[in-house]
Amino acid sequence: MSQYQELKEQCYAANMQLPQLGLVLFTFGNASVVDREKQVFAIKPSGVPYATLTAEDIVIVDFAGKPVEGQKRPSSDTKTHAVLYAHWEHIGGIVHTHSTYATAWAQAQLDIPILGTTHADHLTTDVPCAPPMSDQMIAGDYEHQTGWQIINEFQRRGFSPAEVEMVLLSNHAPFTWGATVEKAVYNSAVLEEVARMAYLSCTLRPDVPRLKDALIQKHYDRKHGVHSYYGQS
Amino acid sequence: MSQYQELKEQCYAANMQLPQLGLVLFTFGNASVVDREKQVFAIKPSGVPYATLTAEDIVIVDFAGKPVEGQKRPSSDTKTHAVLYAHWEHIGGIVHTHSTYATAWAQAQLDIPILGTTHADHLTTDVPCAPPMSDQMIAGDYEHQTGWQIINEFQRRGFSPAEVEMVLLSNHAPFTWGATVEKAVYNSAVLEEVARMAYLSCTLRPDVPRLKDALIQKHYDRKHGVHSYYGQS
Amino acid sequence: MSQYQELKEQCYAANMQLPQLGLVLFTFGNASVVDREKQVFAIKPSGVPYATLTAEDIVIVDFAGKPVEGQKRPSSDTKTHAVLYAHWEHIGGIVHTHSTYATAWAQAQLDIPILGTTHADHLTTDVPCAPPMSDQMIAGDYEHQTGWQIINEFQRRGFSPAEVEMVLLSNHAPFTWGATVEKAVYNSAVLEEVARMAYLSCTLRPDVPRLKDALIQKHYDRKHGVHSYYGQS
Amino acid sequence: MSQYQELKEQCYAANMQLPQLGLVLFTFGNASVVDREKQVFAIKPSGVPYATLTAEDIVIVDFAGKPVEGQKRPSSDTKTHAVLYAHWEHIGGIVHTHSTYATAWAQAQLDIPILGTTHADHLTTDVPCAPPMSDQMIAGDYEHQTGWQIINEFQRRGFSPAEVEMVLLSNHAPFTWGATVEKAVYNSAVLEEVARMAYLSCTLRPDVPRLKDALIQKHYDRKHGVHSYYGQS
Repeated sequence: MSQYQELKEQCYAANMQLPQLGLVLFTFGNASVVDREKQVFAIKPSGVPYATLTAEDIVIVDFAGKPVEGQKRPSSDTKTHAVLYAHWEHIGGIVHTHSTYATAWAQAQLDIPILGTTHADHLTTDVPCAPPMSDQMIAGDYEHQTGWQIINEFQRRGFSPAEVEMVLLSNHAPFTWGATVEKAVYNSAVLEEVARMAYLSCTLRPDVPRLKDALIQKHYDRKHGVHSYYGQS
Repeated sequence: MSQYQELKEQCYAANMQLPQLGLVLFTFGNASVVDREKQVFAIKPSGVPYATLTAEDIVIVDFAGKPVEGQKRPSSDTKTHAVLYAHWEHIGGIVHTHSTYATAWAQAQLDIPILGTTHADHLTTDVPCAPPMSDQMIAGDYEHQTGWQIINEFQRRGFSPAEVEMVLLSNHAPFTWGATVEKAVYNSAVLEEVARMAYLSCTLRPDVPRLKDALIQKHYDRKHGVHSYYGQS
Repeated sequence: MSQYQELKEQCYAANMQLPQLGLVLFTFGNASVVDREKQVFAIKPSGVPYATLTAEDIVIVDFAGKPVEGQKRPSSDTKTHAVLYAHWEHIGGIVHTHSTYATAWAQAQLDIPILGTTHADHLTTDVPCAPPMSDQMIAGDYEHQTGWQIINEFQRRGFSPAEVEMVLLSNHAPFTWGATVEKAVYNSAVLEEVARMAYLSCTLRPDVPRLKDALIQKHYDRKHGVHSYYGQS
Repeated sequence: MSQYQELKEQCYAANMQLPQLGLVLFTFGNASVVDREKQVFAIKPSGVPYATLTAEDIVIVDFAGKPVEGQKRPSSDTKTHAVLYAHWEHIGGIVHTHSTYATAWAQAQLDIPILGTTHADHLTTDVPCAPPMSDQMIAGDYEHQTGWQIINEFQRRGFSPAEVEMVLLSNHAPFTWGATVEKAVYNSAVLEEVARMAYLSCTLRPDVPRLKDALIQKHYDRKHGVHSYYGQS
């Protein structure tokens, strides 16, 4: 049995949640899980429908994006995952989808403004939308550069990937991550709902104000830090 | 067996209706039921997914928001429920959701205007949206103050919680209630549909007029009062 | 066994289709079937949830809206059905729903413009929206007057109920009918889809032009008249 | 057994996917499959509900639109399919639906602008919307002319049906095609999702810019040509 068997099964289970949560159509998405000790991650193969996907199809890849084990070609987004794992050392899983409302915001090249506590319970900033990549970056090693576009945008804004676990890529779609791949999947579903609510609020009232700072901080503190009181300890 | 067994099971059943009615994602919502004689209420534990929730997980709390029985931490919104039960003596159940369209209106900080008889069959006013809380209220005992924000808004508008069984909290989401928790759940579903229809009407025709008074009164009388003729007597 | 047993079962089956087609929430809708020989119609009882409805619950009513058989109170909309049956002698069934998009147009007090062939395959006019009723009509025998509001609007526009089998009531919701109740149910589902498509087209392009006359006529002729060539003959 | 048995079953299976993918209501759609050797195609019969459709109901038609085998009347759109098969020799299957968002764009008489990579992964142009047909074309052999309206629009724009496998017909609805009918069905589902995302982006930000050329080309190359690296080779 493969030394990566458990990693593959965890990756398989995470990928299978995406269609169940209504976040992917056909093959439009992928989830990956990292093994920090072995310096590899497991990722969905490219273009394989969820209906026929098995744990055996999952591909093991190193941080340079090079396949280590598996009979199939890994997701075409593999190099983006690889860059993020290599540079953000605390994250355990990454999810990429083309979920409808989050992608609509990415196409509009707009941050999702923080308008309510559903949003503030998960992050205390707008959901950042990284700008379109330069023609040079696109013409080069595109998926590798996509990872850098995300990292550079976080540096430019002074965002921590431990605090802001999601990003939109202009004209493309969202990526989310987390300490575990289960958290990354959860974040993708939360992002889609936050994107939908913000779409509705903004089309209903174009001048809708952002959430006031006191409320942002309060909802953040409810779920985080020493005085948190949400969930079971 | 606990003296609260029946109360817990009623609370559990009400909570389980929320995902079935499409009103909650993950753990974003909670229902509670009061026992007026024992001066306690049963409420969902904090952060427990509906898929694994059991009647045993339900927490019993007094009107000060202090847990009386149960192994789990109660919902982080518990103090809001407690304030409402303590001050509105006729209500038997409360439901809080982040249902999509109602929350979009709350984020937009707008009352839901009464535009049709679907709305008028249930309440004869706009659905009130309580304004954002002051920084002082937020910094203090936030969930307790949330209850007061609702009560104060009803007093300011001269609304009776027996007549208007729902409210939006600016930047947050809706609360509904009723003589029973089943009615409170029903009201949450009705509110979401009313919010959706009003969103569509307002984006289709921004200057859409409110319902005329004669029609508001007529639909109200069909369901209420001595001359009511809706439903089985 | 009741002489109306078959009528009741046909009415029951039609009513049960409404939640299956996503056209009603809770008890917000009703279907009726007429027996022209016996001069009665069968209709859903008032306020009974679809989950517990049985054929035995169906109420038999005469054209004055007076119950003839049945243990329950008939739908609060019964008199509207009665007026339509009494005055439009060719119709065999009527359906009333508060389906979301059709109701949103009714709340906006707007006709649904004919924008495409999905619409033109079913009717060659805009879906008419009858204006709000006068205060006098509302204060009087409201549901009876609702039927007259529909009939008067058709007369004012020169519409035939055999050609236009649907109407919106301002601030209220749609009614549909047909030679059979099955056709009336079908028309309710078609209306909801036509209302949804028109909402999307109008919000995407507010100055969207109506369908050109040649196309309206062509699609109408495909399904109707001596040269029809749609469906199996 | 019919010499067309396999063709009929393939056609039946493709048609049955349409309601499963949420692309058709009642009988509003049809899929066809061509047999280039026998110079015939199999198509859904007219007006038969999907719930009762069987492989035996499928009709075999020649490229002039004349039925060759089958007891039922073929789809009223048969001549449109026939024209496309006769003139576009490489296509193997055609699908016509009235899917909601794609139809809303067709009603608005607007191309669907290319706004993101979801779109660019499938075609590198806007989704073309053919203009309304002239009154003369409509009054003539309408469905035959519909096919010509599509072909002429592709010629006018210099589009290849091998590269652009979808079109909107103004005031009507979409047609899609592909090397196989399975690909044509896939294209219909992709088109509906692309139409939905573009609707959301355009209503959120009316001045949303089209995708930059470098990104269009990059996503096209990922799936096509000698350097493609999407999917399993």
